[in-house]
Amino acid sequence: MEPRISIVTIATDDLHRAVRFYEAMGLKRHAGITEGVAFFQMGGVILGLFPRKDAEADSGIAFAGAPSAVYLAYNTRSEAEVDEVLAAAEKAGGRIVKPAGRAFWGGWYGYFADADGHVWEVAHNPAFPIDADGNIALPPDTGP
Amino acid sequence: MEPRISIVTIATDDLHRAVRFYEAMGLKRHAGITEGVAFFQMGGVILGLFPRKDAEADSGIAFAGAPSAVYLAYNTRSEAEVDEVLAAAEKAGGRIVKPAGRAFWGGWYGYFADADGHVWEVAHNPAFPIDADGNIALPPDTGP
Repeated sequence: MEPRISIVTIATDDLHRAVRFYEAMGLKRHAGITEGVAFFQMGGVILGLFPRKDAEADSGIAFAGAPSAVYLAYNTRSEAEVDEVLAAAEKAGGRIVKPAGRAFWGGWYGYFADADGHVWEVAHNPAFPIDADGNIALPPDTGP
Repeated sequence: MEPRISIVTIATDDLHRAVRFYEAMGLKRHAGITEGVAFFQMGGVILGLFPRKDAEADSGIAFAGAPSAVYLAYNTRSEAEVDEVLAAAEKAGGRIVKPAGRAFWGGWYGYFADADGHVWEVAHNPAFPIDADGNIALPPDTGP
């Protein structure tokens, strides 16, 4: 396994509601592949929204409910952007799960739930730099 | 919200078991940040393993169980690599949820569950090219 995650799929209970939420967050849905699925190019990763019943039929898996124990983080370029993204999520039909506050690791962060109730952490962490393309990096690994 | 996912965190029921699984899959744990958490640099994204109780204490969220409705896909460079990754997952202590087979969209794919029971799709999809750095791309968006 090479070190990559290619696609993050949300098995959604309501595809149209989920699409509306993520479009309202400012993401651009791929306009070419829209039949029963929604894709968003997220830098070098793809976010997929796929109806739960179709995901379960395809995989034979009965997925657990929300909030998913596999959860996502959106890291920001500033502390102010944390507040902005949380406010945008609420406006888009999400829910603030934990308002922005100071983290024990020094940053500024909060959590929102999307239209299905799945959770994103929104965090400004200066120790994990973000490049111009949006890629995030752990600190240089100097070992234990 | 810019189009990126910074961190994918698995709220794990057993941090050491989860670390062993992902290390056995060939991923390299960050050796500098290891206190109660594990991080893996996955191209421009970070995979985090965080004990469920700590994730719940930090966020105030009671996460659902496995298999998570937010699930991951690892896309491969060849069909043979799908079989290899599924075999590696089984050897690492995971479980084959759906053996490799032909997809309705033409590719070759299957699913495994990690040590916590969370699911990865493993897929070869020639329509979604992967570059040398492991970034995946949707087809050019020529619209509907």
